[in-house]
Amino acid sequence: MSRISVAEYALTRLSQLGIDRVFGVPGDYSFTIDDAVEKVAGLSWVGCANELNAAYAADGYARIRGAAILSTTYGVGELSALNGVMGSKAHRLPVFHLVGMPSERIQKLGLVTHHNFGDTTYDRFQAISASACCVSAVLTPDNCVDEMERVIREALKHCMPAYVVITEASGLKPVIGTPAQGVPLERVTRQQSDPEELEAAVAALSSRIGSAKNPVALVTTLVNRFGAGSLAAKLVARANIPFAVTPNDKGSLDESLPQFIGTYAGESSTPGMVRDLVEEADLVLDIGGIARSELNTGMWSDNLPVEKMASIHDNWVRIGEKVFIHVAMGELLVKLAERITPRQSRASASVAPLPLTGSPADPVCSSSFYPRLQRCLKAGDTVVIETGTCMFHLNAVLLPQGVTAEGQGLWGSIGWATPACMGVAMAKKSGKTWMVTGDGSHQLTLNELAVMGRYGIKPIIFVLNNGLYGIEDVISERGHPYDDLAPVNYHLLPAAFGCKGWFTTRITTVAELEKALEFLESHDGAAYLEVMIPGEESQPMPKSVQDRGYKLNTPQPS
Amino acid sequence: MSRISVAEYALTRLSQLGIDRVFGVPGDYSFTIDDAVEKVAGLSWVGCANELNAAYAADGYARIRGAAILSTTYGVGELSALNGVMGSKAHRLPVFHLVGMPSERIQKLGLVTHHNFGDTTYDRFQAISASACCVSAVLTPDNCVDEMERVIREALKHCMPAYVVITEASGLKPVIGTPAQGVPLERVTRQQSDPEELEAAVAALSSRIGSAKNPVALVTTLVNRFGAGSLAAKLVARANIPFAVTPNDKGSLDESLPQFIGTYAGESSTPGMVRDLVEEADLVLDIGGIARSELNTGMWSDNLPVEKMASIHDNWVRIGEKVFIHVAMGELLVKLAERITPRQSRASASVAPLPLTGSPADPVCSSSFYPRLQRCLKAGDTVVIETGTCMFHLNAVLLPQGVTAEGQGLWGSIGWATPACMGVAMAKKSGKTWMVTGDGSHQLTLNELAVMGRYGIKPIIFVLNNGLYGIEDVISERGHPYDDLAPVNYHLLPAAFGCKGWFTTRITTVAELEKALEFLESHDGAAYLEVMIPGEESQPMPKSVQDRGYKLNTPQPS
Repeated sequence: MSRISVAEYALTRLSQLGIDRVFGVPGDYSFTIDDAVEKVAGLSWVGCANELNAAYAADGYARIRGAAILSTTYGVGELSALNGVMGSKAHRLPVFHLVGMPSERIQKLGLVTHHNFGDTTYDRFQAISASACCVSAVLTPDNCVDEMERVIREALKHCMPAYVVITEASGLKPVIGTPAQGVPLERVTRQQSDPEELEAAVAALSSRIGSAKNPVALVTTLVNRFGAGSLAAKLVARANIPFAVTPNDKGSLDESLPQFIGTYAGESSTPGMVRDLVEEADLVLDIGGIARSELNTGMWSDNLPVEKMASIHDNWVRIGEKVFIHVAMGELLVKLAERITPRQSRASASVAPLPLTGSPADPVCSSSFYPRLQRCLKAGDTVVIETGTCMFHLNAVLLPQGVTAEGQGLWGSIGWATPACMGVAMAKKSGKTWMVTGDGSHQLTLNELAVMGRYGIKPIIFVLNNGLYGIEDVISERGHPYDDLAPVNYHLLPAAFGCKGWFTTRITTVAELEKALEFLESHDGAAYLEVMIPGEESQPMPKSVQDRGYKLNTPQPS
Repeated sequence: MSRISVAEYALTRLSQLGIDRVFGVPGDYSFTIDDAVEKVAGLSWVGCANELNAAYAADGYARIRGAAILSTTYGVGELSALNGVMGSKAHRLPVFHLVGMPSERIQKLGLVTHHNFGDTTYDRFQAISASACCVSAVLTPDNCVDEMERVIREALKHCMPAYVVITEASGLKPVIGTPAQGVPLERVTRQQSDPEELEAAVAALSSRIGSAKNPVALVTTLVNRFGAGSLAAKLVARANIPFAVTPNDKGSLDESLPQFIGTYAGESSTPGMVRDLVEEADLVLDIGGIARSELNTGMWSDNLPVEKMASIHDNWVRIGEKVFIHVAMGELLVKLAERITPRQSRASASVAPLPLTGSPADPVCSSSFYPRLQRCLKAGDTVVIETGTCMFHLNAVLLPQGVTAEGQGLWGSIGWATPACMGVAMAKKSGKTWMVTGDGSHQLTLNELAVMGRYGIKPIIFVLNNGLYGIEDVISERGHPYDDLAPVNYHLLPAAFGCKGWFTTRITTVAELEKALEFLESHDGAAYLEVMIPGEESQPMPKSVQDRGYKLNTPQPS
């Protein structure tokens, strides 16, 4: 019989997927887990500033590595992490959330514990935490081998978080049974198809694509979640179909591919031909299942009638009114690429980088900032995009070859980007991590800077300081005091947080921006740039978009 | 018919209780609420750094004013606040949590919205948020008068949070019906007794107290929650019963009363006679219902057999095996004080202030810090105590006459104190707000400093910097890397956060501490003192306590 403990086993089994960090906050009730992290070879602890930040960091890490581990304590810790884990569910990231719990000895004695209401209901937080996940388990010595296989299988199949409870006492007990030996994530078979449905779906799709005169594809981040990004790229290239992304999926496929035509979001599409090409297509091949949320569709101004759509979801396909089930995305993409007849002609819609604007003495504004940022990005880099006006601007930035982006447009929890950037930087094995955030978002989670400094990671962080919540100024109306922010001197924060060797500056003019970016070319360390854009008017939504969207909120129908 | 909108009505009705601030983070879906705050006379908005901080700040405010308003947005916002609101439930604080929601027009059209999973389930967060409350409602024009009366009645009766959903569209609609006119909280009848049960309880209690030879009282914070602190003080003084507090209830009753005998927590009681007096008493009059959690009972080492106990809960009384129901605490305390025969003798157990130790050149340590802090406190001041080792030390500090304290020992969510201190300071009409926290806790929520600076409040904050999670070092074991913290230069934070006019310093010696405290005597502004105590060994629990408590976690029973 194995002598490995339940907590060590759970962590060992997860580390076999290729996860090498545990993001969390230690705590009584979860010391069993915290101690086990020290004992499992290949795992190291990342002590985050708080639990929500830890959840965001794990989310960022999972975007690069495919999965992540988060550990928090009972009640207070897991509840603080909830919004972050829920965001990972929305954005389809298998974050394994390991939570401690009072020992069964305490429970059997009916002793009252802290982190609770003064009573002896010990499991009151489980349903809450589990609601952010697709699978959950309470581990015991005799169930943990089976349960960990189930938890891992379901989390990877659905590409969603898992909630795993390990009590103080059971976590220390030796596993009963034969430990399973896992394989790295990229070798796991995450989905399996029903052969008949798969064949029918492939036949229907290839026929539909073959008969289309002017098809386009929309590619979502979900393909990357299932490790199928290269398959999607291959399909698009081989079929020679023009492809766009929606805002939520910025950076999900290489934008240097000749088939790339821009970002489609109805009236908020990027300039150029992308909107016309998508809306005039006779087939929209939706690879991943785009989200039809307002921020992803130009306030529901998208025009994608169901009869033109063929959508490839994680394990099902919809073509018009037909649905094919148990169809694994990866298998489908492979077979479809084999089956398809390459198109000869293609609608060319070259996407150009944003033009450089602004003179050296000008104050920095969005139209001078983003084009210069764009020209600094290099193959292998990742851009982490905060929710807010920076998200809208970054959608117009053509990402150079080999540059990816990560955003959280669907869940849209401001503050996500700062800790997520840390997780991304820790997960990446090469290339730089860039992050653009606004002051409104950054203030929620900026205490994570101290953790970045402590662990010596080297992100390049831009904080755009306009003194207000820019995004709310856009979608509500200008002039409410609740949109104003505290007058933080952001560029002083890294020193206060003990970040050593960081390049830190405050930028007000285009000349200062150019000088700083030039310095970054040869700078190998972390950088933190506060960019002042105080005078900039936020760009309001076009009126037609407003009418489609938030106008719905007015009290009297018009 | 009234033309006041639903959102304005809800806020107006709450403001009539005497609440004058709304703590929150603005957001799409809750702009209807945010805008209404601007319109309701007597209310002002406090834009917090994030939602958890806002919940903690509301919690602090409610401790002083009796109730508070918190407003967050749909999904991401309310979930981030959850741990804070749940703590207010544990600590019995009526925090009214107002949350926005997508307009019914959006819902009826079945449009997909952000802050969700890409589907059209709009109410998936309601049950989660409501679980942190004792009452909840979704307001509509035709239900909001009734619903607000119900929500307020239940929240004040149970002294717990309330969850109120206001959709974007309904929130703007005029109220249907006749608005109710409320009264200030202190004039609300929150509980009503069954006359028969009340009389029986008073008779049984006065008889039990009258026949006791050496009774003691334990007074909890719950009496203050129901505005009955002065009634409890009057009862104790008139009956002339020695009283103690348990750690969670530090500062709940004036410690300058001659009947005060110290803090009772079994083996972790304060030095002196308190433990003997409580455990040798033939009656323990528990006024408020003490929590029997490990941190409140010296790891369950309390000795309070049920046959010696008479417990006065919020609206019920237990004496031995008898229970009296529907007995309002306030009414009961009044009648009991009238009925009782004052005791002539009393067991004297004078509690002395901690002695001053340490020479000027010595590094600061706990034994030199707390006695000096104690001597600075003045009548009307409030001390906010963070969970952690500082909580243990503050329990030994004799609070001067008129000084109260606020802690969160039961829920014990580290990070609470910093935003709670802001809420306390904003709620207090006179007296200073002192706060003691450790670096381990402070890092979770220190971004709220910027908000304190922005709104010009003047707390006096001590951050005890030992570079690690001291409390976990105590209850786990020394030497785990996960207990180490990032090397933050705390004293640089106020300037970085734009806090103007703050007295900020880093203190290493007793002389520096004395100089700073002397300066504070005549300083009217905010102060932020980083106190270095790096070399200090945490004080481990006594072995007998460990055996009673966390030893329960070891894998093999001994």
